Amino acid sequence: MSKIFVLGHKNPDTDSICSAISYAYLKNEIGMDVEPIRLGELNNETLYALEQFNFEHPRLVTRVSAEASQVILVDHNERQQSAEDINEVQVIEVIDHHRIANFETVDPLYFRAEPVGCTATILLKLFKENGVAVPANIAGLMLSAIISDSLLFKSPTCTQQDIHAARELAELAGVDAAEYGLAMLKAGADLSNKTLEDLMSLDSKEFEAGAHHFEVAQVNAIGVDDVISRQKELEVLMEQVITKKGLSLFLFVVTDILNNDSVGIVLGEQAGIVESAFKSSVVDNRVLLPGVVSRKKQIVPVITEALS
Amino acid sequence: MSKIFVLGHKNPDTDSICSAISYAYLKNEIGMDVEPIRLGELNNETLYALEQFNFEHPRLVTRVSAEASQVILVDHNERQQSAEDINEVQVIEVIDHHRIANFETVDPLYFRAEPVGCTATILLKLFKENGVAVPANIAGLMLSAIISDSLLFKSPTCTQQDIHAARELAELAGVDAAEYGLAMLKAGADLSNKTLEDLMSLDSKEFEAGAHHFEVAQVNAIGVDDVISRQKELEVLMEQVITKKGLSLFLFVVTDILNNDSVGIVLGEQAGIVESAFKSSVVDNRVLLPGVVSRKKQIVPVITEALS
Ligand SMILES: [Mn+2]
Ligand SMILES: [Mn+2]
Repeated sequence: MSKIFVLGHKNPDTDSICSAISYAYLKNEIGMDVEPIRLGELNNETLYALEQFNFEHPRLVTRVSAEASQVILVDHNERQQSAEDINEVQVIEVIDHHRIANFETVDPLYFRAEPVGCTATILLKLFKENGVAVPANIAGLMLSAIISDSLLFKSPTCTQQDIHAARELAELAGVDAAEYGLAMLKAGADLSNKTLEDLMSLDSKEFEAGAHHFEVAQVNAIGVDDVISRQKELEVLMEQVITKKGLSLFLFVVTDILNNDSVGIVLGEQAGIVESAFKSSVVDNRVLLPGVVSRKKQIVPVITEALS
Repeated sequence: MSKIFVLGHKNPDTDSICSAISYAYLKNEIGMDVEPIRLGELNNETLYALEQFNFEHPRLVTRVSAEASQVILVDHNERQQSAEDINEVQVIEVIDHHRIANFETVDPLYFRAEPVGCTATILLKLFKENGVAVPANIAGLMLSAIISDSLLFKSPTCTQQDIHAARELAELAGVDAAEYGLAMLKAGADLSNKTLEDLMSLDSKEFEAGAHHFEVAQVNAIGVDDVISRQKELEVLMEQVITKKGLSLFLFVVTDILNNDSVGIVLGEQAGIVESAFKSSVVDNRVLLPGVVSRKKQIVPVITEALS
């Protein structure tokens, strides 16, 4: 029970995994004994990054309270996105770049959220503030996180700070950001070994808005046709999730990483809000979302507003 | 509607006022147009600090949305401690050192909370991170905030970081921290011009725990007898607040700044929890709290736990 875990969100993306490993490294360097863990399966993009920079996979832990009494959250703060037993442990730190919601503590804590494109961008500041050098392989992981969250700097969530951090990290890691980044995104967009069930849970997050719960899944792809051709089978699975979780809306987004456009499949009793919210018609449960690549900035606030 | 306000909590203490002024100074230096405001009357301690370092009183604004569409919160995050119309404006930043609760945003923001003794200690880091020098008079305000929140470094909330920051700020301000600090605390503990109504609202904060609301007021004094001798009249006012706000418990704490002990007067349907929570008997609605000086660290968590 004396362990301290560092963890990203459920259905972990590259930022959640790489930032957990990187922040755990920093913490251990300054004398705190922590272990980075993961709450779910690694996606192809993250696997690529870990392999490139020679890292072991963090351990999969589903019930954190069995081993730890304290945790550090990276890349999320909302409870429903965290470990299922998060209420049974003390959150001693949060490093994040998302909106704040469903988060409450009894005691003061270190909570550092900044409106930047990636947790790793904040971590680079923390390395500097603590006077700890970033080793080449950790720099590679942090660079991977920024490239992933910013879709190689093309997402509207990407800030100048992210670009500067990535430049610095690429130098430390000894890689070319553009070249490495495209290779990593392509590895992530390779959905050939994925079942529909995989696609559903690869990067899916649940949110609350007023009395409603909604979920937004997102997959990156090279061209959207491959996924859209399986829409009918996907809808069956989506309906199951809606029933199981009592969702008002489920939006499944396929983002073309080469064009930076998305297509959404929308179901649920509140699906009707999508048309006016995104000013785009829904045909056959499908909606075109031109220029939309960011769930956080271009999708979740729009749905939250429409449902509230 | 284009203004951005910087504000501390209701019933402002020295940290809330001095940190609002200091952070507004920093923001203006880096090119943001902001105005520090206050949500309530200034106490004697804060008046002393503002006068010593030659500052105007920030403007009293009760409805922020009439003039601003965005605000920056310092020294608090819980909505019930903020402007009454806080839900009608966008919170773009929070700099705080309290627990996090009743706080939620639609968009990502800059949220910097650290488990240190005072907001001003975090502000000193932000001046450095932004490469802005702290002028002598602003340093004096920030020092005043740290001395106030830490009761001249004697509160258990005081950390090494607060002590180091205060040392640095005292030098910048050109004052002796111990000497100036005691004079400021004594000015604040002078209750001779205060009515009982003043004492009730000087530094009172409301909290939630489970289904319960409770309030903890705190006044600093030199010796507690003066206040305790007016207990019966005080209880009448406390009962009125309990009824008006639907509180389960109201704890009025008088803290002796020379001995660093407190005495509490407790009323409300849940008053019974105090005895076991603080392991001290309640006689005539009064409880001795030896060594207790910090509402945040020694009182609120104990009551929250007992009521939850
Ligand atoms: Mn992220
Ligand atoms: Mn404070």
